[in-house]
Amino acid sequence: MLNRSDRRLWIYDTTLRDGAQAEGISFSVDDKLQIAHRLDELGVPFIEAGWPGANPKDGELFAKLRDRPLKQAQAVAFCATRRPGRSAATEPLLAELLAAQTRWVAIFGKSWDLQVTAGLQTTLEENLAAIADTVAHLRQRDRQVLYDAEHWFDGYRANPDYAIATLDAARRAGADWLVLCDTNGGLLPREIAEIVAAVRDRLGPDISLGIHTHNDSGTAVANAIAAIEAGATMVQGTIGGYGERCGNANLCTLIPNLQLKLGYDCIPPDKLAHLTATSRTISELANLAPDPRAPYVGRSAFAHKGGIHVSAVLRNSATYEHIAPEAVGNQRRIVVSDQSGLSNVLEKARSFGIELDKNDPAARSILQRLKDLERDGYQFEAAEASVELLMREVLGQRPHYFLVQGCQIHYDLGRNVYANDSMAAVKVMVNQCPCLEAAEGNGPVAAMDAALRRSLVQFYPTLAAFHLTDYKVRILDGQAGTSAKTRVLVESSDGDRRWSTVGVSTNILEASYRALVEGLEYGLMLHGVPPARMSVLPAIAVELG
Amino acid sequence: MLNRSDRRLWIYDTTLRDGAQAEGISFSVDDKLQIAHRLDELGVPFIEAGWPGANPKDGELFAKLRDRPLKQAQAVAFCATRRPGRSAATEPLLAELLAAQTRWVAIFGKSWDLQVTAGLQTTLEENLAAIADTVAHLRQRDRQVLYDAEHWFDGYRANPDYAIATLDAARRAGADWLVLCDTNGGLLPREIAEIVAAVRDRLGPDISLGIHTHNDSGTAVANAIAAIEAGATMVQGTIGGYGERCGNANLCTLIPNLQLKLGYDCIPPDKLAHLTATSRTISELANLAPDPRAPYVGRSAFAHKGGIHVSAVLRNSATYEHIAPEAVGNQRRIVVSDQSGLSNVLEKARSFGIELDKNDPAARSILQRLKDLERDGYQFEAAEASVELLMREVLGQRPHYFLVQGCQIHYDLGRNVYANDSMAAVKVMVNQCPCLEAAEGNGPVAAMDAALRRSLVQFYPTLAAFHLTDYKVRILDGQAGTSAKTRVLVESSDGDRRWSTVGVSTNILEASYRALVEGLEYGLMLHGVPPARMSVLPAIAVELG
Repeated sequence: MLNRSDRRLWIYDTTLRDGAQAEGISFSVDDKLQIAHRLDELGVPFIEAGWPGANPKDGELFAKLRDRPLKQAQAVAFCATRRPGRSAATEPLLAELLAAQTRWVAIFGKSWDLQVTAGLQTTLEENLAAIADTVAHLRQRDRQVLYDAEHWFDGYRANPDYAIATLDAARRAGADWLVLCDTNGGLLPREIAEIVAAVRDRLGPDISLGIHTHNDSGTAVANAIAAIEAGATMVQGTIGGYGERCGNANLCTLIPNLQLKLGYDCIPPDKLAHLTATSRTISELANLAPDPRAPYVGRSAFAHKGGIHVSAVLRNSATYEHIAPEAVGNQRRIVVSDQSGLSNVLEKARSFGIELDKNDPAARSILQRLKDLERDGYQFEAAEASVELLMREVLGQRPHYFLVQGCQIHYDLGRNVYANDSMAAVKVMVNQCPCLEAAEGNGPVAAMDAALRRSLVQFYPTLAAFHLTDYKVRILDGQAGTSAKTRVLVESSDGDRRWSTVGVSTNILEASYRALVEGLEYGLMLHGVPPARMSVLPAIAVELG
Repeated sequence: MLNRSDRRLWIYDTTLRDGAQAEGISFSVDDKLQIAHRLDELGVPFIEAGWPGANPKDGELFAKLRDRPLKQAQAVAFCATRRPGRSAATEPLLAELLAAQTRWVAIFGKSWDLQVTAGLQTTLEENLAAIADTVAHLRQRDRQVLYDAEHWFDGYRANPDYAIATLDAARRAGADWLVLCDTNGGLLPREIAEIVAAVRDRLGPDISLGIHTHNDSGTAVANAIAAIEAGATMVQGTIGGYGERCGNANLCTLIPNLQLKLGYDCIPPDKLAHLTATSRTISELANLAPDPRAPYVGRSAFAHKGGIHVSAVLRNSATYEHIAPEAVGNQRRIVVSDQSGLSNVLEKARSFGIELDKNDPAARSILQRLKDLERDGYQFEAAEASVELLMREVLGQRPHYFLVQGCQIHYDLGRNVYANDSMAAVKVMVNQCPCLEAAEGNGPVAAMDAALRRSLVQFYPTLAAFHLTDYKVRILDGQAGTSAKTRVLVESSDGDRRWSTVGVSTNILEASYRALVEGLEYGLMLHGVPPARMSVLPAIAVELG
C-alpha cells in the first residue's frame, strides 16, 4: 500500500478515459500523451489513461507511455470484470489489460442486482465470482487493483446487502481500493455521505474507499467532498469536469477546495499555482474553449466588473475574493491596471531569461500590449514563443530576419483530385535582397508555409530542420459565422525543442500567416542566428500588426 | 405573510439583477421585460427585477411592468440600506425604490463588522440603525421587505454576535424574510448548514430565512440545498447560473433537485416541463450560447454516446438517466459516434421521422458508412443535419438541388488593408442551367459562401433567408502540421430553426465547402423545396465524396 498520512487524499484523474466520453471530445494518441505528462507535472498521483481492450488507440498510448514514462504518477489501465461464463485467464480483454504493462489497473464491476440479472443476464453469484476471479487474477500478476463499483449508490439503494457483497468480493480477492461510483450522477451530498458511512460501518474503517461522481445534479464536487468527509480517501474526476452528459467532478474545483479550504494534502503545494495553466492547456488540447466561469481557473473567476466591487477589492480582497487568485495561478482582472498582472509579466520575463524591474516603464508597456492583444482575442497561455517575441520587441531586443512583401494564394476546388490543390507565391526581402518563390501544398496554409520556407532557406539554412508539429484553429465568436475572429496556434520543432506561436485575425489565412512567420522567427532566434540588416520594419507586419 | 405548507419553498429569481452582473451580459429593458414574463409563466413566485436607484433603465422596467403586469409573480425592487448619517426619509435611493411601486422590496445591508468600519467607515451602531430605519420606513409605506444580509457567512465567521445583531435589527423592524448571502461564494455545504442552524438557534425557529449563494467553490447548488435542509425556506438564484465571477446558484438545477429529488414544492408541477425551454429562451435573450453540459436542461444532459450505454438505456433508462428527461422538458439524445451500434442508428433515424427496421440491410449500410466516415475524421455528434442527409442518401430519399462544377478562391495578403481580401468564383448547374458567379469576403470561406449563395439564390429564393450562425474548425491530427485533416462544423439558420453540418478534408477550404453545401441542401429540404432535375450526380460531390 501507498504510504499515507491523516490528511492525505489521492487524486485520480480520468480525463483521458471518462473525460474522453464527453460529447465533442476526440483526443488523438498524441493529445493523450501530452495530457498525461501535464497531469504528471501537476503532481496528480493516478492517471487513468485508457481502456486498452475496448479502444485500440489506447494500447498505442500505453506503449508510448512506456517509451516516455511519467515521472511520479501511476498510469492506470482500465477494464471490466471478466464476462460471465469465462475464466479470467481466457478473457481476452484482461490479456489486453495486462499487455498495457502498468503497475496499477482499474476494474469496473456491477453493484446493482438489476444490472446483473437484466443487463448482464447472469446470476448474482456469477457476478460475485467474476469480480473475485478478475481481481485475484490481476493480483497474481503483480498488479495493484482499484475496483470501480459501477452504479454503486443506485445498487445500494436497491439491494444494500448485495451491493456490499460485491465490494466484499473485490476486497477479499485483494483489491487495494474500492471506488464507489455515482454512475448516473443522480445523488445529492447528504445521501452520498450516509451511504459512504454505512459502507465503513459494514466493511470496517480500514478499507480504502474512493469516490467517483458525475454532475447530473450539479453537485459532483459537493458529492465528492461529502464522501471524503465521510471517510473516502481517493477522489476521481477530470480536468474541466469533462465527461459524458453533464460531466464528471471537476478536479480544478475539487483540488483547491480540498487543499486550500479543508486542509487536505492532494498535490504538492508548490504545484497548485500551475492549476490554471494546466487546465487551459488541456482545454486547448481538447479543442474546447475554456469555461470562463469555471471556479478557481476560469477567466472570470476573479473578474470584478462594477465600481463598488473594484474599490472594495482593492481595499480588502477578501470582500469579493474567496481565495487569493495567485494560489491557483489565476489572476484578478479589473479594468484599472493591477499589480498582479505586472508581477505575472515580471515572472514570465524571468522565465525567458529577461530581468525586468517592476518600475521599468517597459514592464508596463508589455503588460498593456498583452492586455490589448488579449482583448482582441489573442491568448498567450499556449503560445509562449509569441510572448517572448513581444517582450523582446518592446525592449528593442527582437531580432528581425526578413520582410514579407507579398503573399498570394490560389485554390482550385476542381484540382483536388491531385493532392496539392493550393498554390502560394511569396516575396521576401532579406539583407536588401528580394526573393520571390512559389510552392504548392495540400491546402492553402500548407502552400503558404512551403513558399515561405522555400524563399527563406537559401538565406537561413538552419530553417531546413524546422517543421510544424501542430496547427490548431479556434473560432472566437461563433455568432459571426465565417466572418468571426479566428485564433491559430502553431507549434514548431527543430527535431529537438518545440515552441508555439499564435496569430489572430478575422481571416484564417492571415491568422495562420502571423503564427507561421513568428514560428520561423522564433526558431531562428532560438538557434542564435544573427539577424538581417534591416533598413525598414517588416512591411506587411506593420500593416498587420 | 404568505401562506405556506411544510414542503413549500419560495424560489426567488435574480437573473435580472445579480445575473446581469455577469461578464458578457447586457440586457436591454425589453429583454428584461420578456425574461420577467417568462419567469412568471414558469411559476417563479419572486422576480428581482432591478435596482431603480442605481440603474436608470431599471426604473423604466418597473414602469413597463406596471403597464404589463405579471400574472402571479411578485416583481421585487432592490436597494441598499440608507447611507450613514442620513435619515431613511431623505435618502434619495429609497425614494426611487418606492417610486417603482412594487409590493415587495429587497434591502441589502452589511453583516461583516470589517465592512462596516473599514468599508462604510461608520460605527457598528450606526449600521444597525441604518438597517432598522430603512426596513421600518418601507414597512410604514406598506412594503413587504426582504432583508439581504450581504457577506453574511464571512461576517458570522468574523463576529457572530454582531452578525446576528444585524439580522435581529432587520427582524425587529418588520422584515418578512432574512436572506443569508454567501456574497463571495467561498463556503462549502457543511459550514453553510452549521451556520444556518446556528441562526435558527439564536433567533428562534419562526423566522423566515432565505439563502443566496455564489458558485466560486463550484458548490452553489449544494450550498443552497444544505441551507434548505437546515431550515431556510427561500432560495435565490438565476437561470443558467448567470452572475458575476463564477455565477450564482443555477435555478435550472436547483428547482428539479428540490422538487423531483427532495420532494419540495417550488413551482407548479405542470410547469416543470417548461424548464428547458425557459432556460434556452433566456440564454438567447442574454446572447450566450446555452451550456450543453448544464444539468437537466443542457443539450448533452441526456445524451448517450457509447454503444453499451445506448443499449442499456433503451432497455432500462434508469441505468444512465437519473430522471426522465421529459420531466424537465428535455429529451434523450442518442449520439452517433464511433462507439455506437445499430441501436443508436435506429433511434436516431426515428428522431428524423425515418422508420427503419433493425433487420433492414439499409440500417447496417448506414452504420457502416457512419463508421467509415468517422474513421476518416467525421464527427456527427454535433452535425445532425449531415447524419440525416447521409441516411436519406442511403435510402434513396435525398433530394439533389444543384451541382457545383467549379470553385476557385484567390487570396492576397497585401490587400488586407481593405476588409475583403478574398475572392471566390463558383460555377453551379441547376436544371441543366449553368451559372457562374463571383463574390468577395473577409476570408476565403466567407467569399466562397457568398459566391455559392449568389449563384443559387436565383434558382432557390428560399435561400435568401438562410445564414450561418456558427463556424467551427478542428484540426484532427496535430502532428501532421498544416497537412493535417481538418473538420469543419457549420451551423445554419433560417431565422427560426437551426441545423448543423460537417465536412472533413486535409484542406480547410474543401472541408468548409462540404459543410457549407450540405447546410444549403439541408435547409432547402427542410423547407420542402422540390429538388432539381438531375441527369447526373453532382460532379464535384462525386469526386469529393
